Amino acid sequence: MSRTTGYRATTTPGQVEVFDFDRRALRPDDVELRITHCGVCHTDLHALGGPADQRGDAPLVPGHELVGDVVAIGSDVTRFAVGDPVAVGNIVDSCGECARCRAGQENMCEDFPTLTYGGVDRLDGTVTLGGWSSSYVAREAFVYHRPAGLDPAAVAPLMCAGVTVWEPLREWGAGPGVRVGVVGLGGLGHLAVKLAVALGAEVTAFTRTAGKADDARALGAHQVVVSTDEGAMAAAGSSLDLIIDCAPTTHDLGPYLRTLALDGTLVVVGDLGEARVQAMDLLRARRRLASSGSAGRVRTQEMLDFCGEHGVVADVETLPSAQVASALDRLARGDVRYRFTLDLTDLEVR
Amino acid sequence: MSRTTGYRATTTPGQVEVFDFDRRALRPDDVELRITHCGVCHTDLHALGGPADQRGDAPLVPGHELVGDVVAIGSDVTRFAVGDPVAVGNIVDSCGECARCRAGQENMCEDFPTLTYGGVDRLDGTVTLGGWSSSYVAREAFVYHRPAGLDPAAVAPLMCAGVTVWEPLREWGAGPGVRVGVVGLGGLGHLAVKLAVALGAEVTAFTRTAGKADDARALGAHQVVVSTDEGAMAAAGSSLDLIIDCAPTTHDLGPYLRTLALDGTLVVVGDLGEARVQAMDLLRARRRLASSGSAGRVRTQEMLDFCGEHGVVADVETLPSAQVASALDRLARGDVRYRFTLDLTDLEVR
Repeated sequence: MSRTTGYRATTTPGQVEVFDFDRRALRPDDVELRITHCGVCHTDLHALGGPADQRGDAPLVPGHELVGDVVAIGSDVTRFAVGDPVAVGNIVDSCGECARCRAGQENMCEDFPTLTYGGVDRLDGTVTLGGWSSSYVAREAFVYHRPAGLDPAAVAPLMCAGVTVWEPLREWGAGPGVRVGVVGLGGLGHLAVKLAVALGAEVTAFTRTAGKADDARALGAHQVVVSTDEGAMAAAGSSLDLIIDCAPTTHDLGPYLRTLALDGTLVVVGDLGEARVQAMDLLRARRRLASSGSAGRVRTQEMLDFCGEHGVVADVETLPSAQVASALDRLARGDVRYRFTLDLTDLEVR
Repeated sequence: MSRTTGYRATTTPGQVEVFDFDRRALRPDDVELRITHCGVCHTDLHALGGPADQRGDAPLVPGHELVGDVVAIGSDVTRFAVGDPVAVGNIVDSCGECARCRAGQENMCEDFPTLTYGGVDRLDGTVTLGGWSSSYVAREAFVYHRPAGLDPAAVAPLMCAGVTVWEPLREWGAGPGVRVGVVGLGGLGHLAVKLAVALGAEVTAFTRTAGKADDARALGAHQVVVSTDEGAMAAAGSSLDLIIDCAPTTHDLGPYLRTLALDGTLVVVGDLGEARVQAMDLLRARRRLASSGSAGRVRTQEMLDFCGEHGVVADVETLPSAQVASALDRLARGDVRYRFTLDLTDLEVR
């Protein structure tokens, strides 16, 4: 076992406190990493916002966008050595046997994948504690090689926000000659724009406010459409092949569906609650509504390799982990462009 | 010009009367057919149900599932000879130049395809008059070779109901090893079951009433699930790859979506109005909601050839055209298994 320092939820919703705990002793296929950075995701905010009495007895340590370096390996580990730059995302295990796992979709494991925090370890039954901490221990199968040339703080958000948009971009063939729209320029959306551009697609960013047009172009978008401008939306009608819809709340999908060309697909990547769709908006051009959530192991490593080759990282604001309260407060108000990363090197390793 | 007898709408909604009119003189690329049979589609019922004063001055002659034999050809026609068994579906022309037409999706023509009745001829601007008549004249490009070995009365519904379900079955890969569900065992659904079975798929029919289970099995369905039985629906969870949803009215898509496995697709083939979808029903297994309407020329001929090879036809009740009023009345009450075809040989050809 190794002693670790991290942040756990307190009984006050939305607040965390410093917390010392033990990581498990290395199993033969385990990798231990010293975490240097971890992203702050909306999921963390939701987890911390829930009533403490619904969390059970286990501490809640958020964080599932982990970046660091290998400090120890189990006896059977073959793919990593001490000192390797690595990253871990939002799942750390799966059954490995179901059809979805065998298809490389461990994120959709029929037995439910083990979440990086708040999950239940498949061997010892303990609750997993997340990456807002100085170290983590995970099976090597769920640890990824991280391109050493990229800023580690800016890599962290790739591990959740990044793979979430990478998966549908790849699944639906984003690349040269493909016209891709991105709805919602936040943590996910800004990465969708960057990744789609790097894949060679023709990228249109939708924004509700004209003031964000320059930001979208700075991210690489070739066109910007202000979605509150009905004329502009009509002019964009039937012009796109694929839309990655990253807007995090319920909204009318119709105006975006109508910008899709024949056989175009709108992919929802977040839980919008109830989506209302006019069948005719689909039928008029055989349009499709699809969905995507996270990614499996192969696509995750693929994304990191691609980002290394193309120099793609998130736009982040990095804060010392001691300022985590400020990050949470500002994220709740939407005051971040585009993602917070905690620098965890300020946490002592014992 | 050739004299034709048919049925047109009267000023009383839902009623038709015998009507003599002229078909155009053959253009060089025209084919004239003696119509022997024509299906009765819900679309006809809707068209006849509308207020007469909204139809304009042109007569309304329904019918877009035409079957017959070639009786004359234009000077440039190469693909047909007099005496050939043929069929015509719900469109008889398109712009031929847009991206969709060039992709073989004339049914989705950006300039809107010319409907078999109630459309506007692209050359002379006249309103097209449909197939509840003794003859029809159409461009050879929109006339199809009909397998001579099949009962012509039972072929007629293939031209609308058939292609409507054939297109998504083919588009989404129905075949051996693919688990296909069919919702709604009416004119479209019964053909979806038959075609999916003939394609080699494993077919599950959904029905609201247990009493229809034997009918579904008689059509070839391998499994039947009573959709009002929550336990049966739960047991069918995540078990299908593709669903063709033929139910003609607004309904909750959730229970059917949840029977789709990872990356499964539910295809809506009719205008359901507003479809409400819980995003989580999609996200939990990357499920997809797609749509399809009619088919282009290549897929239409492909379906007819396939039906000829596999002996697939619609289950029809054939009535002399003089009894069209009875067909309309019974169709409106859902009293047909599974499609009416009018025998138009009782109409005089002058």
